[in-house]
Amino acid sequence: MTVDHTEMPLPRGFLYAGTIAGLKQENKKDLGLIYTEQNGVVGAVYTRNRFPSAHVQYCQKLTPSNRFRALIINSGNANAATGERGIAANLQMAQQVAQKLNLETDQVLTSSTGIIGKPFPIEKIESSLDGLTSQLQTSPVDTAEAIMTTDTKPKLASAKFEIDGNTYSAIGFAKGSGMIHPDMGTMLAYIMTDAPLSALNIQALTQQVTERSFNCVSVDGDTSTNDSFFLISSHPTKHDDSVHPVVQDALTQVAISLSKQIAADGEGANHLIELTVKGTPSHEIAQPVMNAILTSSLVKTAIYGKDPNWGRILMAIGNGLNQTPLKCHPPTTITIQGTTVFFRGEPQPFDETALSRHLAKHEVEIEVDLHQGDFSLTGWGCDFSDEYVHINADYST
Amino acid sequence: MTVDHTEMPLPRGFLYAGTIAGLKQENKKDLGLIYTEQNGVVGAVYTRNRFPSAHVQYCQKLTPSNRFRALIINSGNANAATGERGIAANLQMAQQVAQKLNLETDQVLTSSTGIIGKPFPIEKIESSLDGLTSQLQTSPVDTAEAIMTTDTKPKLASAKFEIDGNTYSAIGFAKGSGMIHPDMGTMLAYIMTDAPLSALNIQALTQQVTERSFNCVSVDGDTSTNDSFFLISSHPTKHDDSVHPVVQDALTQVAISLSKQIAADGEGANHLIELTVKGTPSHEIAQPVMNAILTSSLVKTAIYGKDPNWGRILMAIGNGLNQTPLKCHPPTTITIQGTTVFFRGEPQPFDETALSRHLAKHEVEIEVDLHQGDFSLTGWGCDFSDEYVHINADYST
Repeated sequence: MTVDHTEMPLPRGFLYAGTIAGLKQENKKDLGLIYTEQNGVVGAVYTRNRFPSAHVQYCQKLTPSNRFRALIINSGNANAATGERGIAANLQMAQQVAQKLNLETDQVLTSSTGIIGKPFPIEKIESSLDGLTSQLQTSPVDTAEAIMTTDTKPKLASAKFEIDGNTYSAIGFAKGSGMIHPDMGTMLAYIMTDAPLSALNIQALTQQVTERSFNCVSVDGDTSTNDSFFLISSHPTKHDDSVHPVVQDALTQVAISLSKQIAADGEGANHLIELTVKGTPSHEIAQPVMNAILTSSLVKTAIYGKDPNWGRILMAIGNGLNQTPLKCHPPTTITIQGTTVFFRGEPQPFDETALSRHLAKHEVEIEVDLHQGDFSLTGWGCDFSDEYVHINADYST
Repeated sequence: MTVDHTEMPLPRGFLYAGTIAGLKQENKKDLGLIYTEQNGVVGAVYTRNRFPSAHVQYCQKLTPSNRFRALIINSGNANAATGERGIAANLQMAQQVAQKLNLETDQVLTSSTGIIGKPFPIEKIESSLDGLTSQLQTSPVDTAEAIMTTDTKPKLASAKFEIDGNTYSAIGFAKGSGMIHPDMGTMLAYIMTDAPLSALNIQALTQQVTERSFNCVSVDGDTSTNDSFFLISSHPTKHDDSVHPVVQDALTQVAISLSKQIAADGEGANHLIELTVKGTPSHEIAQPVMNAILTSSLVKTAIYGKDPNWGRILMAIGNGLNQTPLKCHPPTTITIQGTTVFFRGEPQPFDETALSRHLAKHEVEIEVDLHQGDFSLTGWGCDFSDEYVHINADYST
């Protein structure tokens, strides 16, 4: 299995399109389509925000499915907090796509991203559907561009793998720059594969992949109303045997690559932080600790300042542990860029100037060891620069 | 009862001191003392961070108490994550104060704030104790200054009240600028009163006051290893009858005033946000919703940008609700500076330019109504400016 972003393998049976519908103020692509030539299977994971957008409410009722044919995605308007009219507009979008492509409405899924609380401009989308569907092609690059909001670049990843002498592949694209968080803050991600999967398996697989990838990304700790991850196979099977580990691994690697690209492109980010929380008894303990570190404004500003301020990391661990059932005060070890600065509860001497120099690198690796078990979890975040503040203070007005 | 910061009433039986011990790089006061002439009663609430500082570990064993005589406070070094040596140094500090003042060690409490993970400079404190104890006086202003770190100003509040023809008073001071959060991020607060209180009552009262004041403040969502709030009365009584409502109200008002001063002085803050979450069934529902809004980087940057972006507030409510047992999707109402922008789940037309102008005011009032009950909670936070990033990227190096 390889992960490669330049010569991307293209899973069979998918077509894509991306166009300009005029939803964004800038003249940029803002409407995309994923299409399968035959019925595909789809699994999905959605935001846990209690006010999900119109598209999330709609799709939740339709996934998992083994009748998937199309997914329409717009950027520029989130269709969230838009009340009953937003829900009607989303349904109308699906109906229009179904009509153009000669499908049933429940074979069409939807995604939206962009500003919250503004009326959904359904008429702009309708008048762009002819152009969109006429552009269907094998490359997903236009679609990957059409879903961008404050992203500075499109995010793509792919994998090729073999099972029993047959070659399959997977390709994924994603958006997400601000509001990224475990629980998937304003993140949209799509992975397409031609590996054989059943409707039953694909939903469990979607959740397993999410747990090791998108749920381990944090940019700013906020969770959007719209986050969604869809896993689509153009190769439905009725066999509900367990998923081949090679498939699970390949899809997880594609999702991890997308996750890292999302974290590295966090709004105003200068550093990609790769954090491993090890020595924990279980995922239940590791995840809150990881979240607390990756979302700590103090840790994030310290990384921005190239400051090996492990005290703030310890403080964040202490906050995270407080949200777990682990009742002890573990004698923790903290390692930054390979230098152990705190060992089993005691500060260690280290060369601050040298470590600060190592923190100038784009990728910052932090390892936390609680010495309480064998479970390990890796996640990704970014530093917190004044650029983040500028982007978010100026976004809507 | 009045709250007044200029002509502060001074509760009887207390003396205070503040001096320069050389713990800070700048030549500023960094060592303070609170002293009672007779045994007082004290209640306290501490951080829930799982790695509490040496002073928190020490004081937790000693409060509540009816033998209180002195509390020594230093800024410049948090004595947190300092291992066994830090714990020994804290004890040594208490012992030295007890010796100078002819007290038992367990009559002396301690507080520290400042940088985490640096050896505690006990020798500097020891050599300053003679000077400190010789300066004991009735005004707490020097002590209030000695506990400041990134605070731009000392924070003081007071109240005078009458019960059954007797006049009592309370005075409080606090520090806390970054790392403020419900659960009391790097906040130190002290309220002194001469109202009669028993050791049993004072602890329950301390918790009740905290729930309505310091636990409703958020600056950056991080919770420090050192946060502590001490309530001290110079007037111990053995009567465990319920606390007079006038006392509870007066102390709560002093604590609320300190809380608002802390939020308004958040690192880099331009706005004080006063948020009321109403129409909730209980504190258990209101508190997570309040926290989610006050700690949302997207809400905070929107306020900084004078942007009436209620969609971000709704998103934050949806995240907060997800941490509560309330399983419905309440038809929420959001009011910003008196303008209702979202009513029972539907966006409302409003004049964005006018509302943006109202957001230029220092105090920003946000009201959220879930229409699910009668419980209401008010809390305070601040906006998020690029100045916050500068302060925290540069703090330790």
